[in-house]
Amino acid sequence: MTVDLQAYPGPLGETVASLPLVDHHVHGALRASVDRPTFESMISEGPKAPSAGTQFDSQIGFAIRRWCAPLLDLDPHASADDYWERRCALGEDEVNRRLLRAAGTANYLIETGYLGDAVLTPAEHAEVAAADAREVVRLETVAEGLLQRVASGRAFVADYPSVLAEATRSAVGTKSIIAYRAGFDVDPGRPSDDDVAAAAERLLRSLGDEIRLDDPVLLRYLLWCGVDRGLPLQLHSGYGDPDLDLHRANPLLLMPWLRQVESTAVPVMLLHNYPYHREAGYLAQMFDNVYFDIGLGLNYAGSQSPQLIAESLEVAPFTKQLYSSDAWGPSELHFLGSLLWRRGMSRIVGMWVRDGDWSRGDAERVLRLVGHQNAERVYRL
Amino acid sequence: MTVDLQAYPGPLGETVASLPLVDHHVHGALRASVDRPTFESMISEGPKAPSAGTQFDSQIGFAIRRWCAPLLDLDPHASADDYWERRCALGEDEVNRRLLRAAGTANYLIETGYLGDAVLTPAEHAEVAAADAREVVRLETVAEGLLQRVASGRAFVADYPSVLAEATRSAVGTKSIIAYRAGFDVDPGRPSDDDVAAAAERLLRSLGDEIRLDDPVLLRYLLWCGVDRGLPLQLHSGYGDPDLDLHRANPLLLMPWLRQVESTAVPVMLLHNYPYHREAGYLAQMFDNVYFDIGLGLNYAGSQSPQLIAESLEVAPFTKQLYSSDAWGPSELHFLGSLLWRRGMSRIVGMWVRDGDWSRGDAERVLRLVGHQNAERVYRL
Amino acid sequence: MTVDLQAYPGPLGETVASLPLVDHHVHGALRASVDRPTFESMISEGPKAPSAGTQFDSQIGFAIRRWCAPLLDLDPHASADDYWERRCALGEDEVNRRLLRAAGTANYLIETGYLGDAVLTPAEHAEVAAADAREVVRLETVAEGLLQRVASGRAFVADYPSVLAEATRSAVGTKSIIAYRAGFDVDPGRPSDDDVAAAAERLLRSLGDEIRLDDPVLLRYLLWCGVDRGLPLQLHSGYGDPDLDLHRANPLLLMPWLRQVESTAVPVMLLHNYPYHREAGYLAQMFDNVYFDIGLGLNYAGSQSPQLIAESLEVAPFTKQLYSSDAWGPSELHFLGSLLWRRGMSRIVGMWVRDGDWSRGDAERVLRLVGHQNAERVYRL
Repeated sequence: MTVDLQAYPGPLGETVASLPLVDHHVHGALRASVDRPTFESMISEGPKAPSAGTQFDSQIGFAIRRWCAPLLDLDPHASADDYWERRCALGEDEVNRRLLRAAGTANYLIETGYLGDAVLTPAEHAEVAAADAREVVRLETVAEGLLQRVASGRAFVADYPSVLAEATRSAVGTKSIIAYRAGFDVDPGRPSDDDVAAAAERLLRSLGDEIRLDDPVLLRYLLWCGVDRGLPLQLHSGYGDPDLDLHRANPLLLMPWLRQVESTAVPVMLLHNYPYHREAGYLAQMFDNVYFDIGLGLNYAGSQSPQLIAESLEVAPFTKQLYSSDAWGPSELHFLGSLLWRRGMSRIVGMWVRDGDWSRGDAERVLRLVGHQNAERVYRL
Repeated sequence: MTVDLQAYPGPLGETVASLPLVDHHVHGALRASVDRPTFESMISEGPKAPSAGTQFDSQIGFAIRRWCAPLLDLDPHASADDYWERRCALGEDEVNRRLLRAAGTANYLIETGYLGDAVLTPAEHAEVAAADAREVVRLETVAEGLLQRVASGRAFVADYPSVLAEATRSAVGTKSIIAYRAGFDVDPGRPSDDDVAAAAERLLRSLGDEIRLDDPVLLRYLLWCGVDRGLPLQLHSGYGDPDLDLHRANPLLLMPWLRQVESTAVPVMLLHNYPYHREAGYLAQMFDNVYFDIGLGLNYAGSQSPQLIAESLEVAPFTKQLYSSDAWGPSELHFLGSLLWRRGMSRIVGMWVRDGDWSRGDAERVLRLVGHQNAERVYRL
Repeated sequence: MTVDLQAYPGPLGETVASLPLVDHHVHGALRASVDRPTFESMISEGPKAPSAGTQFDSQIGFAIRRWCAPLLDLDPHASADDYWERRCALGEDEVNRRLLRAAGTANYLIETGYLGDAVLTPAEHAEVAAADAREVVRLETVAEGLLQRVASGRAFVADYPSVLAEATRSAVGTKSIIAYRAGFDVDPGRPSDDDVAAAAERLLRSLGDEIRLDDPVLLRYLLWCGVDRGLPLQLHSGYGDPDLDLHRANPLLLMPWLRQVESTAVPVMLLHNYPYHREAGYLAQMFDNVYFDIGLGLNYAGSQSPQLIAESLEVAPFTKQLYSSDAWGPSELHFLGSLLWRRGMSRIVGMWVRDGDWSRGDAERVLRLVGHQNAERVYRL
């Protein structure tokens, strides 16, 4: 990793720069180059590139031009056109190699359930990044695969737990996207096998070529199977998908479910959370098994990300927050997640050290906890 | 315009001071002087002056005394009593002339539907301000006028579109206040003509001297007629009226309606939004035709407005945010909207330039986009 | 009080340090020493100490080690173990004496309804703190006591108002916890005596040894009896209890009730509010009789509390905000509430003075209003 100390001013700069991060929720880097409209759609959560202007006119676009350009041998703040031209000239393999290695991420916990063909596998990603990678399995993807094969709803209910066990044999965690398929304001209870079988049966009869699992009963069943599996269970929460009704992905709506799950001690990992990151921190204080991150939001907020970092350091214990980029595709996202987190932490926590609120030793310990130790402990890495 | 560079410290001071703003959502300045309790009620969204103390003991009151007092030949921070005495001595015309010209707003898009007799018409306002002015027409005001004249609910349905077309012949936009008449948690669909006619009929039968259009079916009908009209459609959102249940004016509740409207490409302009400005920025990233501002909140937050500005510069593309004061009445509000926006942008964006996150050229471009170019493009000025 | 000017940098340091605060919502200090797991559970709103790590690894833990340690003769940032050892050696009486006197709080308005046996009475607390103390009475505690004695639901309805009058004879306010027993999204109206009697009858028949009053009809009855009593009525709002569904304690949900209560002019005091403090400030602008504080959240946010203070100084008039610690038990909480409020105000408001937004005189006046004068006026101290 090239340590760019200029990026991390203040008393914690060196510590911040050398942290071997665990990116506990991330996807693979792009397998092959894409055209510019596709690239622009990948640096937004909107469904497509804007009809007017360019997606580079955003915080994330400015951050790419500021921080990624020098790694592609351009000046900081190179124009979007120059950046794009240079990126194409280097090719995806070289761009990935440069940006992923500059990220300084030691371990990627890669969720493989979203458009997996377009991105590198965990093993490929690890090699390009010169890092470790472990897998996180999306509950819905396993279920959609099984639905392609079973003959009846009842068979689905019977088979899903063992199929999930098999699919997660070497995984370190599972993930649910119930937030954007149904919302968190669902019945928190475990559905009956009969209800699940009936819902699966309905879905099987209506199947076209593509399966989209969005029945709340089925989604709740998967969630509880995830709890039974016992691995840390990641939940998409808040910002991050055009499908969702954002206010129904407010993690507070999970409280009735969290009260039922707490006794299992299965770690519940609330992902992203923006703009509900304060709410996520509150849940992390209230529930012994709840953890959270502010990934994704940091990338999109760019130069404004330090405030989000500050807001994530309010009421949650420091043992309950993790680092994540939630990058998918362009390796700019993997790199910026790391850079902006390091830069924001060095600014915010460095200010507290300078003002005498925190000791330097405490600050460095918190950087290690959030940067990698909490993830290592919870995921048993 | 008197450029007060002291108000805009930092590397962007001169650029900020000279921007010819387009105030895309605003009302006319006061036509005549009012008494002090009335004035105090006008610098709050509360329905009347406070029973204890003075409304000057607030951020907006402090901002008036700090920034408007020198324009009335007083020292900065003049007392409220001195300010009031001097204001009365100068008279409304002179106060308007001084404050509106100091605002440096080049073009006012004036919404004329609220208590229009008490304030200047767009033409009068433009003359006093030495600026341009265009009109934005409130959908509900046109409907209330028509309801005074039609004989039946069915006639209302039949006539409204053409009456609206006539009323907006020279307008640049329309506006809906469905947020505080019904809330955003309504059925998003276009109501049937039969349902609208029945609702209008009910209203016609219950009419007293004053019409208050608050039937959700009628409000939805107007909203869809606004979409049909094709002009940028402003929606009051979040903060700004004692009538509303604030949590029901959360713009996220519009998502089902926005999904239906997106294909029309009619620009949807989310106004104010405080304290849901992060949510509005999210919608502006997700939907190609959604724009937003943080007017009104800036005035009321005074010295704390830079944080609101920073929060408005998170996830939305810079092509999707506009400047607005939402001033109504006292020209202090028109002036402060401009001053606080310029001052906050110079502080926040200037800090990003100084810290190397943004280039100066990019920063100046964003100032122009939000300050006037986005409005000029969307409203075709 | 030992004035630690180092804690309050900037132009307002001396003024901030010497303010005789009124802590308008607080509970007594611990009566006797507890073991460490119990202590750790008391510096969190979670129901118990964490299963991994220590509750000292949090903002509040860091703040205790930074600011309380020197008052116990330790270095700033002393380790948690050293702090705990020293605290045990000094004993609760001495810890209370040192920390409460260092708080510089002149008057504690003590709510006595929660686990009263474990903490000092108002008179005892006042003596140890060398301060004044007055009582605030929890409506539900009075009702639960009465339910132990009455023979019928009808008797409960008949007797509660006079029992409340007696219980509040020397009190300065009442308090409702309807937020975490039922949520604010209840019918706002005053329930009929028949409905209340029936609900009380049901509760009486189901009584075990412990009474837990959580019937919405009964809670609403108490709330309206609180209004009738006429004293300032405190309402738990937002953050602060593991029982509650946080999103149902959003104070905006009170708007229908507030519209009914405003004409009584009974002061409604919204407590804590985090993360809905902006919403509380909005209500304080909209309703003449609504006041708010940001207690509790400041303690838990530690070094990040200045941002919360800044956010509390947005749209509400300065005559409508009060100081509170919401401390219960460990006197660290009483002390830190005061220290962090003073430190945050000196930083935020001091910055506005330095930047020329506010005059020093105005700033000092706001410090006095929020620090004690608003409480003195509203509670008639």
